[in-house]
Amino acid sequence: MNLETRSVKIENPDESIYRNYLGGRGLGAYYLFRELAPKIDPLGPENKIILATSVITGIPIAGMSRCSIVAKSPLTGSFGEAEAGGFFGAELKAAGFDALIAEGHSKTPVYLFMHGGEVEFKDASAIWGMTTKEAQTEIRKQLNDRLVRTASIGIAGENLVRYACVLNDLKFAYGRGGLGAVMGSKRLKAVAVRGDKKPESKDPEAIQRIAKWMAAHWKESPGTLSRNKYGTADTIMSMDRLGIMPTRNFQGGSFVNAEKVSGETMAATILSRTDGCYACPVRCKREVSPPDPYKTDQDYGGPEYETIVAFGPLCDMGDLGAISKANELCDAYGLDTISTGSVIAFAMECYENGILTNRDTDGIEVRFGSAGTILQLIDLIAHRRGIGNLLAEGVKRASERIGNGSSRFALHSKGKELAMHDPRGKVGLGLGYAVSPSGADHVQAAHDQAFAGPTRFMEMLGVTAGVDPRNLGPEKVRIFLYAHLWWGLLDCLGGCKFVFQPHGAGVLTPHDLVEMVNAATGWETSLWSLMKASERALNVARAFNVREGFTPSDDTLPERLFEEIQFGRSKGAKMDKEQFQRALRLYYEMMGWDRGTGVPTTAKLHELDLGWVDQQINAS
Amino acid sequence: MNLETRSVKIENPDESIYRNYLGGRGLGAYYLFRELAPKIDPLGPENKIILATSVITGIPIAGMSRCSIVAKSPLTGSFGEAEAGGFFGAELKAAGFDALIAEGHSKTPVYLFMHGGEVEFKDASAIWGMTTKEAQTEIRKQLNDRLVRTASIGIAGENLVRYACVLNDLKFAYGRGGLGAVMGSKRLKAVAVRGDKKPESKDPEAIQRIAKWMAAHWKESPGTLSRNKYGTADTIMSMDRLGIMPTRNFQGGSFVNAEKVSGETMAATILSRTDGCYACPVRCKREVSPPDPYKTDQDYGGPEYETIVAFGPLCDMGDLGAISKANELCDAYGLDTISTGSVIAFAMECYENGILTNRDTDGIEVRFGSAGTILQLIDLIAHRRGIGNLLAEGVKRASERIGNGSSRFALHSKGKELAMHDPRGKVGLGLGYAVSPSGADHVQAAHDQAFAGPTRFMEMLGVTAGVDPRNLGPEKVRIFLYAHLWWGLLDCLGGCKFVFQPHGAGVLTPHDLVEMVNAATGWETSLWSLMKASERALNVARAFNVREGFTPSDDTLPERLFEEIQFGRSKGAKMDKEQFQRALRLYYEMMGWDRGTGVPTTAKLHELDLGWVDQQINAS
Repeated sequence: MNLETRSVKIENPDESIYRNYLGGRGLGAYYLFRELAPKIDPLGPENKIILATSVITGIPIAGMSRCSIVAKSPLTGSFGEAEAGGFFGAELKAAGFDALIAEGHSKTPVYLFMHGGEVEFKDASAIWGMTTKEAQTEIRKQLNDRLVRTASIGIAGENLVRYACVLNDLKFAYGRGGLGAVMGSKRLKAVAVRGDKKPESKDPEAIQRIAKWMAAHWKESPGTLSRNKYGTADTIMSMDRLGIMPTRNFQGGSFVNAEKVSGETMAATILSRTDGCYACPVRCKREVSPPDPYKTDQDYGGPEYETIVAFGPLCDMGDLGAISKANELCDAYGLDTISTGSVIAFAMECYENGILTNRDTDGIEVRFGSAGTILQLIDLIAHRRGIGNLLAEGVKRASERIGNGSSRFALHSKGKELAMHDPRGKVGLGLGYAVSPSGADHVQAAHDQAFAGPTRFMEMLGVTAGVDPRNLGPEKVRIFLYAHLWWGLLDCLGGCKFVFQPHGAGVLTPHDLVEMVNAATGWETSLWSLMKASERALNVARAFNVREGFTPSDDTLPERLFEEIQFGRSKGAKMDKEQFQRALRLYYEMMGWDRGTGVPTTAKLHELDLGWVDQQINAS
Repeated sequence: MNLETRSVKIENPDESIYRNYLGGRGLGAYYLFRELAPKIDPLGPENKIILATSVITGIPIAGMSRCSIVAKSPLTGSFGEAEAGGFFGAELKAAGFDALIAEGHSKTPVYLFMHGGEVEFKDASAIWGMTTKEAQTEIRKQLNDRLVRTASIGIAGENLVRYACVLNDLKFAYGRGGLGAVMGSKRLKAVAVRGDKKPESKDPEAIQRIAKWMAAHWKESPGTLSRNKYGTADTIMSMDRLGIMPTRNFQGGSFVNAEKVSGETMAATILSRTDGCYACPVRCKREVSPPDPYKTDQDYGGPEYETIVAFGPLCDMGDLGAISKANELCDAYGLDTISTGSVIAFAMECYENGILTNRDTDGIEVRFGSAGTILQLIDLIAHRRGIGNLLAEGVKRASERIGNGSSRFALHSKGKELAMHDPRGKVGLGLGYAVSPSGADHVQAAHDQAFAGPTRFMEMLGVTAGVDPRNLGPEKVRIFLYAHLWWGLLDCLGGCKFVFQPHGAGVLTPHDLVEMVNAATGWETSLWSLMKASERALNVARAFNVREGFTPSDDTLPERLFEEIQFGRSKGAKMDKEQFQRALRLYYEMMGWDRGTGVPTTAKLHELDLGWVDQQINAS
């Protein structure tokens, strides 16, 4: 649909498009590459924002709730992508849509209401400037329907903060890459959906069988059970013990106050309720009610692992109440918590090194450990006020403007701030940060990098031996590549990485995923075909970046990762730069990309039925 | 085992070897590459002959009976491989073995008796020189067991005919590449097996479920049903109609007497009984009783499609009785019918062009159409007498000796005679002939080349659109590559390409294959992992050839295929040489092989967990 002209065109893509691209990342990459002109301004009207479910979204099975947003990212200038759980995806599907593509700039604030196969443009002037909760409340009131689901932005998106996010129902964040700013640039405050179309499956019995199995068995998985009890913060203590929980802006890997911010502590103190996604019994979402002075609105949910580490250890701050407050503010304003915490930690290190001074900060003492400063900066960033206006640009742009060697404190890849996993203890993740088409991202293939032995999932994919997590030799590159394709498949199909745990009993497996796709669609697809679809999506995303001018020099990691971790359980650990460079080139070649240029070869593109992409990036 | 020292070493490979190589081609390639020194004489004691079943051989499901023999081929000098059905594989497994590797040259003729986990060396002096049937009868008598199964050679193998074959129970041929001559060079007349170990499955119920399904449904498949009625010769008429049934040594593509040699005619005239393989209800094997003067012993089975065309249309001879007799002789002597028919057709064309004369043939008029000449030549070849001694070398060597431009009548790739499918009407098959590691071979990926639309199987592998059978563009190369991996997987697992029909109902599918492997082994493998294992096997075989000195100039087709078919329904059809060359290079690159040298890259080998192979072929 075009937001400027308020016109809607409803497409019914050929089945082969669904078979080749599946949904989510795949479908998003397909349309983005196809429809975007090269080198457009991500915040200009030529950018498009794509919300995409998949061919199995809406089937009532745990872990299949996720929806993707794809656009050219204003943070990285690259392929931008984020996924979120909740209920929005299933509801969009029930409203009669698999995906939507919004283009153009609306002249006035607008929100979309999609229901019964129709799209309405609704005036959003009254809700522009509102928090996500205020906006959702008002939208539901206007539509007179409390069950409307929303994907909306807050003022951070309106103010074009480059890492503004989009939120499903206030707390399920399409966090990374600033896709909220893309919506903001379009004056698209929210997409509201309401559906009554039951998901159709070709084999409902098979769906029911898997759903029942999962309901009966999920508690057998220690990982899933732990997530149910403690949320994603259940890994705080183990990451701390491993010494790869980023602390003081990646100076260290263990945090003295880890226990104070752990999932266990949360459960024992401020946890008020749990919540979950569509059809999922795991309920890993937290809701919290910390006492004053950090009283928060529990509707915004509690902090997740990434959020806790970004505002806690990374900023050397150990108050779970303050972290919860930071989380609430980010959700209300629509800010990505990872980038927000990172940019604040960056500012703190700059300040403590005299690179930022009180003159820059209007007198705020931007020191590690200060909860007050963190909350103040979040507010300034969302409003783009004072130092917040600079920090709203992300660590890469901010450090470029600040100069003075501040870039060594700017921990990012392709401009996207690193997630809260230090690759110096699981080096495959570093490769993932570097080659992720959307910039440093922990959901490319994180888990599988941490195991020395092969995981059950990796065995299903044919990996019969594991590799030390600190080894980035050819064996590890292979494991990373296979894991990357598998995780990417989940991003194409809207699958949750927690329900598809790589180890143990009581989890959904790649086999189940194939069965779900077949049951939902009536196809006879296979894990081979699905993995190839994931590879296809990854190649289209890569080709998008190639067309934008990205080169191997963008597939980098910040210098700090090649230096030793300075304190904590993994003190002294570092990545080897030469080994990393070798691994990167080997990865290119394994992917069928040119070893020198990193460009997908004509042969690889044809092998993936991507001749149409080849024409655009390899035609001489 | 070493035949010279009569020593036996029993290996218990690690499970990861089974997971990575599965069996058949995979396991054979693994051991051959690992254990053979480069550039050894295929007929010398350093060559090894490997008989390999797979991790699912012996499960009582239709179509899973096949066993592989792998050795360096005396016909091609390359990786040599042949598969055969019947009962031998299941029996070998029941005898307690997955595979055997025979090395060295025995001083005196020997046969092996494998049973109950033990190997006995038995004196074969008395059976040396016998036909396969006489030998089997004598072995069963000696062992006092009529249920012993044999894989044996005839006098062609003893006489080192370069395309001598090995036969299971007289009629299931490991036909191609002269592996019978390798056995002959070792003075190994036969391997006899007898077992009572029931195949163990981790999930016998799943096995039973698939077996029952197949028993109940196989007749729903038109392809399988037709094979049941008419044997593999059921395709004679359709190949003739397509105009790609090689006639007069590939001069033409249709045969005026096609109907006289069709499967339908066989069923209506000389068919006496049908037979089949272990656990298979399809019973596509024929037994025939033609009247005088071609009375044959039906225990040798009736002629298959390849045999009929090789002695019929290819030699322009239309007498089904004579073809049956030729088939009987080949099975009794242990000759590959495809190469034998081809070498005779080659001689005929040389003779008719005055390149061979009565002086060369001791007065035999080697003209197209003469049944008497064909039978006479078979005899001479097997005994290496007269002109037969020259023809026993295969068309490549024979044409090199004859000279005088005879090479244009020598239709082979890598020295292996083309099979009875003319690629000028299904060009993907031509690519298969050229890149097959064991030389021109129709069981690399034949079927799927003939369909313009995507087959059901190809859809399972993610191919959503088909390509005209005469188009060798990038889309076809992709389809060929995927089909090649799938067919190769069947060769790793001992699966029959007829039961896994690419189209329609009532057939086993890739999904069933995954389920069988998992049920038999207790693994949780996937089609991704299995296809990768097939890719691994293909790369090891390629690496073997690279180590032997093969280059892209060996991945060729005979000139005749780039010239027009001269008569028949596809008159005028030809392959385009430039397009073929482009397709070949594209195929290399799609496979992860160097575009220029055709050598598997370091990256591809590591991606397939083949670092150990990389060390041998890419170490600089």
